[in-house]
Amino acid sequence: MAQAVLLGEDARGRSAPNPNVGCLIVRDGEIVGRGATAAGGRPHAEAVALSSAGKTAAGATAYVTLEPCAHDSERGPACADLLAEAGLARVVVAMRDPDPRTDGKGLARLRDAGVEVRVGIARSAARASLSGWLTRLALGRPRITLKLALSIDGKIALPSGESKWITGEDARHHVHRERAHSDMILVGRGTYLADRPRLDVRLPGLEERSPRRALLTRGEAVAGWETLQSPQDVYRLHDVNDLLVEGGSSTATAFLSADLVDRILIYRAPIIVGEGKSSFGYVGLDAIADAHERWRLTGERRLGVDRLEVYERVRG
Amino acid sequence: MAQAVLLGEDARGRSAPNPNVGCLIVRDGEIVGRGATAAGGRPHAEAVALSSAGKTAAGATAYVTLEPCAHDSERGPACADLLAEAGLARVVVAMRDPDPRTDGKGLARLRDAGVEVRVGIARSAARASLSGWLTRLALGRPRITLKLALSIDGKIALPSGESKWITGEDARHHVHRERAHSDMILVGRGTYLADRPRLDVRLPGLEERSPRRALLTRGEAVAGWETLQSPQDVYRLHDVNDLLVEGGSSTATAFLSADLVDRILIYRAPIIVGEGKSSFGYVGLDAIADAHERWRLTGERRLGVDRLEVYERVRG
Repeated sequence: MAQAVLLGEDARGRSAPNPNVGCLIVRDGEIVGRGATAAGGRPHAEAVALSSAGKTAAGATAYVTLEPCAHDSERGPACADLLAEAGLARVVVAMRDPDPRTDGKGLARLRDAGVEVRVGIARSAARASLSGWLTRLALGRPRITLKLALSIDGKIALPSGESKWITGEDARHHVHRERAHSDMILVGRGTYLADRPRLDVRLPGLEERSPRRALLTRGEAVAGWETLQSPQDVYRLHDVNDLLVEGGSSTATAFLSADLVDRILIYRAPIIVGEGKSSFGYVGLDAIADAHERWRLTGERRLGVDRLEVYERVRG
Repeated sequence: MAQAVLLGEDARGRSAPNPNVGCLIVRDGEIVGRGATAAGGRPHAEAVALSSAGKTAAGATAYVTLEPCAHDSERGPACADLLAEAGLARVVVAMRDPDPRTDGKGLARLRDAGVEVRVGIARSAARASLSGWLTRLALGRPRITLKLALSIDGKIALPSGESKWITGEDARHHVHRERAHSDMILVGRGTYLADRPRLDVRLPGLEERSPRRALLTRGEAVAGWETLQSPQDVYRLHDVNDLLVEGGSSTATAFLSADLVDRILIYRAPIIVGEGKSSFGYVGLDAIADAHERWRLTGERRLGVDRLEVYERVRG
């Protein structure tokens, strides 16, 4: 299942509006089929894996990161039916699909067809990889990640605005990987005007994974960039599972004030800036006590001399 | 030797002006004597350990974190002679004493007396524990540690000045242990007036380890507090190995601007403050590039929901 999750993870950032599912077909201990949700959402991972397995799928075991869908659409048949028809002996599923059109119906249809079904293997890994899509299903908007490169003392730039280079090569490399797994990247108009950022993925082999670009602005649109007039416009992004917000301070503050940030990636450089530009403005906080228990440090690692801190919003 | 380092570490913060040495005497695999530099610097660790070992020291092995001293003083005889006279068979030393009054003479005197000598065992651990005293020897001033409780975005307080409580119980506990191993704690006059901090050690069993208190101020002195008129006054602190600077922002900025900080302890809470008081003002930085390679992250650990980041100044 770990390999199925990796297959699905690779599709993160281009499977929207569908979930980035991974599927592995194993027969007699040998991998005979692999698949992930294709770009744009079709075909589904199971269909891809079945077509790579061909006839060897009969009697085999399929590992899927999400319950196979149970609803036909004009874009293709239901995966539960496809797996049953291919004669799979067993289907191992990481997590049930909360989409009400499937939600248990896929499992039932497989069982009715005489296929052995197991659910819950590597659920948390699958959930983490699918969290963009799950956020959209639960909250009606993409999962929003805020990315910042900060000094020890939380500054993003000198008073002059100079911010290159706060973090080093390894951290920038990591940012590009994060971009490759996002459907859309957003910056504010100030950052656009100051830096004219390309926001593309400059990693060998991943150049074509550059996501859509968006500007947060009430002003006029820019060719090649989508426009969000306010953070709340994320509710209109029906084909974006993972949205990466890259700056600057006003944009970050606007998203935080609207409580529209699910995850923060801090690339922390071991430098002291002192007087300089702060990461955020007023985010609605009037007492320190109210700031607690909103964020949890869920990950950390060294990236060269820098450190990555991952914070996730604690909800519910 | 690890146990000898722990013994010495326990004396850190009260052995000044002497080094916080630890000494263990082992005979036939059994610990027969233990010692650390006493409060105020005398007796030395070796003398304490020898007196606890008594006659069993003859033929035993002594583990000492620093080369035994070779110079008599009016406060007591040289430890190299004491060890030789006690009939030690072997002396294992973590590091040579850079103090020119000893610097190899202690080792030579032991060898001349027929004692087997080994040097360099657990040198880096001993060096870390003795770094306050080593800094004083090398730079003529205490090792200066700057302690800050910060949010993710590097704020120390709200615009109102409210800063309680940024970090939690585990982090505060750690601060008190750090205090117990400091000879002196310093705050600025602003912090003194705003908080009237006790700066004492409130840990069971360590209450008596509360260090001397100092104010950084050009104004009048306060009863019970020593006064430093400027950061450069640290060069007058001949009986302080470890100085802990606890705030506020102006004081921290003054020490950083004077390049008088050797170590920074950041207690980082998983909170976002947004608009608020920054940790530091102008520290002399005019280009981000100049900020690099001055600090190195040398330690990190979780303290409850908070994190401790330890940065050390890279010199020479």
